[in-house]
Amino acid sequence: MTRKVGIIGVGNVGSQVAFSLCTQGICDSLVLIDKNAKKAQSEAFDLLDMAAYTHPVSITTQDYDALDDADVVILAAGPEMMAQEDRLSELDETLAILDDVLPKLLHTAFRGIFVVITNPCDVVTHFVQERTGWDKQRVFGTGTALDTARMKRMVGSVLHVSPSSVEGFVLGEHGDSQFVAWSTVSIAGKAVTDFAVLDGDKIEQETRDAGWAILQGKGCTSFGIGTTAAMVMQAILTNEQRIIPVSTFDAKTGVYIGLPALVGRDGATTYYPKLNSAEKERYDASVAVIKQAIESKSTKLKS
Amino acid sequence: MTRKVGIIGVGNVGSQVAFSLCTQGICDSLVLIDKNAKKAQSEAFDLLDMAAYTHPVSITTQDYDALDDADVVILAAGPEMMAQEDRLSELDETLAILDDVLPKLLHTAFRGIFVVITNPCDVVTHFVQERTGWDKQRVFGTGTALDTARMKRMVGSVLHVSPSSVEGFVLGEHGDSQFVAWSTVSIAGKAVTDFAVLDGDKIEQETRDAGWAILQGKGCTSFGIGTTAAMVMQAILTNEQRIIPVSTFDAKTGVYIGLPALVGRDGATTYYPKLNSAEKERYDASVAVIKQAIESKSTKLKS
Amino acid sequence: MTRKVGIIGVGNVGSQVAFSLCTQGICDSLVLIDKNAKKAQSEAFDLLDMAAYTHPVSITTQDYDALDDADVVILAAGPEMMAQEDRLSELDETLAILDDVLPKLLHTAFRGIFVVITNPCDVVTHFVQERTGWDKQRVFGTGTALDTARMKRMVGSVLHVSPSSVEGFVLGEHGDSQFVAWSTVSIAGKAVTDFAVLDGDKIEQETRDAGWAILQGKGCTSFGIGTTAAMVMQAILTNEQRIIPVSTFDAKTGVYIGLPALVGRDGATTYYPKLNSAEKERYDASVAVIKQAIESKSTKLKS
Amino acid sequence: MTRKVGIIGVGNVGSQVAFSLCTQGICDSLVLIDKNAKKAQSEAFDLLDMAAYTHPVSITTQDYDALDDADVVILAAGPEMMAQEDRLSELDETLAILDDVLPKLLHTAFRGIFVVITNPCDVVTHFVQERTGWDKQRVFGTGTALDTARMKRMVGSVLHVSPSSVEGFVLGEHGDSQFVAWSTVSIAGKAVTDFAVLDGDKIEQETRDAGWAILQGKGCTSFGIGTTAAMVMQAILTNEQRIIPVSTFDAKTGVYIGLPALVGRDGATTYYPKLNSAEKERYDASVAVIKQAIESKSTKLKS
Repeated sequence: MTRKVGIIGVGNVGSQVAFSLCTQGICDSLVLIDKNAKKAQSEAFDLLDMAAYTHPVSITTQDYDALDDADVVILAAGPEMMAQEDRLSELDETLAILDDVLPKLLHTAFRGIFVVITNPCDVVTHFVQERTGWDKQRVFGTGTALDTARMKRMVGSVLHVSPSSVEGFVLGEHGDSQFVAWSTVSIAGKAVTDFAVLDGDKIEQETRDAGWAILQGKGCTSFGIGTTAAMVMQAILTNEQRIIPVSTFDAKTGVYIGLPALVGRDGATTYYPKLNSAEKERYDASVAVIKQAIESKSTKLKS
Repeated sequence: MTRKVGIIGVGNVGSQVAFSLCTQGICDSLVLIDKNAKKAQSEAFDLLDMAAYTHPVSITTQDYDALDDADVVILAAGPEMMAQEDRLSELDETLAILDDVLPKLLHTAFRGIFVVITNPCDVVTHFVQERTGWDKQRVFGTGTALDTARMKRMVGSVLHVSPSSVEGFVLGEHGDSQFVAWSTVSIAGKAVTDFAVLDGDKIEQETRDAGWAILQGKGCTSFGIGTTAAMVMQAILTNEQRIIPVSTFDAKTGVYIGLPALVGRDGATTYYPKLNSAEKERYDASVAVIKQAIESKSTKLKS
Repeated sequence: MTRKVGIIGVGNVGSQVAFSLCTQGICDSLVLIDKNAKKAQSEAFDLLDMAAYTHPVSITTQDYDALDDADVVILAAGPEMMAQEDRLSELDETLAILDDVLPKLLHTAFRGIFVVITNPCDVVTHFVQERTGWDKQRVFGTGTALDTARMKRMVGSVLHVSPSSVEGFVLGEHGDSQFVAWSTVSIAGKAVTDFAVLDGDKIEQETRDAGWAILQGKGCTSFGIGTTAAMVMQAILTNEQRIIPVSTFDAKTGVYIGLPALVGRDGATTYYPKLNSAEKERYDASVAVIKQAIESKSTKLKS
Repeated sequence: MTRKVGIIGVGNVGSQVAFSLCTQGICDSLVLIDKNAKKAQSEAFDLLDMAAYTHPVSITTQDYDALDDADVVILAAGPEMMAQEDRLSELDETLAILDDVLPKLLHTAFRGIFVVITNPCDVVTHFVQERTGWDKQRVFGTGTALDTARMKRMVGSVLHVSPSSVEGFVLGEHGDSQFVAWSTVSIAGKAVTDFAVLDGDKIEQETRDAGWAILQGKGCTSFGIGTTAAMVMQAILTNEQRIIPVSTFDAKTGVYIGLPALVGRDGATTYYPKLNSAEKERYDASVAVIKQAIESKSTKLKS
């Protein structure tokens, strides 16, 4: 009956995810865990202050055992989002976080879905799955879901169409090697590449840099990712089978990477799109970037 | 047709108000203004990133002229919320902000409702009304609406009742002299003071200190006030005539102060509660605190 | 994880409850059962047609086994709501419905909460509990929740206040012997009986007759009860512990009757209000009406 | 500020549109007009009974002057939806309704958007525009928006995908000559016609017959159209520029017909899709059906 979500790491991103879940009434019970116990408690109180005016929610803090019956656990811990321009460079710190978090989580009875927001999202998702041994479908990352929203915002803005009426995906790494799969981008069934006014390269560049641009102005990005993660939670908790571009396991290449997936109660099922040859090349290049990052760490870890 | 809200000051509080308005679909058009133009622009982009997944909204930044047809303008600029434990001590900085903002606003055709969040809320609301000469009903502050939510959260927690089923108000200054008007606090029509388990003094103390406690853990308070302000906007924009404890003009004492008010399209109409004699005394003491703050600044300003 | 609600009887009332649950996203899975299988199927299709534009939901029809893991089952079957002016007169038909429905439900593994809308609500709730032997807290009726909303609408209309800011309850039988417990009715903590403009007798009379008046104009009442039932579901499914006047078991008198109750995951816990002596008399009279209806049927059933 | 919607005709469809608008908080003020004044008043009371538990709304009944400042007026009057299997046969009765309604509306200061639900939707939209002389963009019908939702429901059901992740349109007449524009129907950018399991002819047939099937089971269709119309209102009132298949003016053929359109504050701007030659043929055939219906009536009216 109760929909329970755990959030590990309640910095700018994790707390905004919690706020979105509460405001939209997407879950009924939250577990907040942070390396800073006082921060977790303060976020809980700030969230509960809003409950009288929006949706009822109960909140537990700092208690891994409370995750026993969680439907989803979100990993949002990590260095401040995109503190460096290149998301891959944040990896070392993040792996140390996994060393701390995963053993504790494996000690609980948690059998739900695990969603990674922490960057570099695709690589972290890989290591979470590898270290837990959980079913590959049950672990996935938010991947290029936010990048896709940004691309829709930009295309919509140029063509004076609601972003919700722009279809299509940003695919690949949630990082510099990502790409807009223009062959999937359409409005009312018409390929947007038909529109002369649209400068695809510019939009792709701005999509890739959007997080960095926001970061420079406000010191973090939070609203976009908070809302994106809430939408992913909604799809899981309602067993929606909604197609969302997330960091999902690509059995063909053996990596987690941004691809469309059916998201529902059992996690993410990869839903391979039809890419043209230029897109396939860019996809393969992105796979290589992720693989290299994984291997460099795997080697180091083993040595 | 379009519901338009301007927010002056998009720091932790102002931006979270914007997020709540977008997520809850309370307005269709936002104007964001900040002394830091880059921050305003980043907040706008971060908000627009969520539009593809929630409600449509259009956003303008840094443009006072865009407030011409705004239904409401919110003042959230100011020193970081409660950077000092005593909200009155933040006044000097805030008055300088009014010197900057109000002349620009008076230059526009804006004829809507003006809502003050900036602290010390009651005193700032006074100076806004005095300097603009706007109808007293049209200017009001969020006052003790958030403190009331906190009291409900705490009473509900002790008595195992939803905070939304706890009735009653925190009144007076949105600051240290505030008080829980216990004679108004009830559950299902029963005075909560009848419940032996309830330690009223403790709850009052914790309500007063709640912002400070949250501030210490997370460096700001944002979710509670964001949601509270959104609820106030909803009441204005739908002409709800909902009773909310806000900083409203008390014609009897001549100050803006936390009292219940009917909130709707024309602003806030004070709705005097029935207080017992002990509460009246505390109310008068709170009035005196606000008056003194106003006078000290008025004298200084005149000299 | 999934929130599942079963609705037995999808006439005007039951189908509108289903629609409210879907539109508000209160549950994720519905089971619709009706004596007319074709009607249940049509309601399911009509509800699913809206899913593309609102919240995801899955729907099963005519399958008692699908109730095995339902969180709540609602009984909305029965003669057309208030086909007769006196709700008690509908009882015979309804008892025949219980004879059909309850054995089938007892055959399932259902262990959730059972909520009665079918009229005469208090009496039907009694017989459901008696025949199933379920815990008294786990079975309850919507009782005077709708009557209370109507009283708030009328008081708010006279005093130009939002109905959501009118506190208080209509208590007793969801029928002719109901009464407004004026001692509980207040606005901002002020007893509404203090307002000279308010004609309490008129409001009470109109509250009692409101369903009948609506029925005469549109042939049924559906929106009010649909929304009321959805609010009750929300309280159960989120374990809100919200106080709602429902038909809850009064251990003192031994009947189900309209009283405030804490509504949450475990059903309804009666929350006795403080009534004045006049109200107590009217309450006792209402108890007597319900008891008499129960006894007349019990006798008949036994004979 | 206030979002005001008028509904002319509050039968099963019109009243459910009103309920959806209230429940979803899409407008703040409603004007209900019906040939049966008692029914309009009862619907208003039933809607207001829910206000205490959902969103605030004010309602006026039977007053054309209240439409002076309405943002949108919806025409839902007419014979019971699809009382005959062929929507065109309902035309005579409906034209008589226009004779009654339009002169009264033209007498008001109404300058908003006019949306037709009444069937045969495309033909009625034509006559409304012709008789009022209003800008062609300002008048449009709900057209194939509901049929499109039904197609998405069916495709999603076969392919185990959320209907909200099925893209594409049903186009042409909101009637028997409508067709699924399969070249526009895709999931994650992949044409659904690639899926072997999908029987396109069957889905098209069932989409066309869905209303009739629902009608036979429940005597009307209401939830799907109520939600569809609410979504259209949301797009207008928020100036969303969302693409919705509505009955919009096709300047190339001179008829109102189901085509994608950008829906916003100024009404519907036709957004021509790319159809293949088979689809163009079916489109032309559908245009011919609508033209013939218009001409037969025009002649009769002139004679």
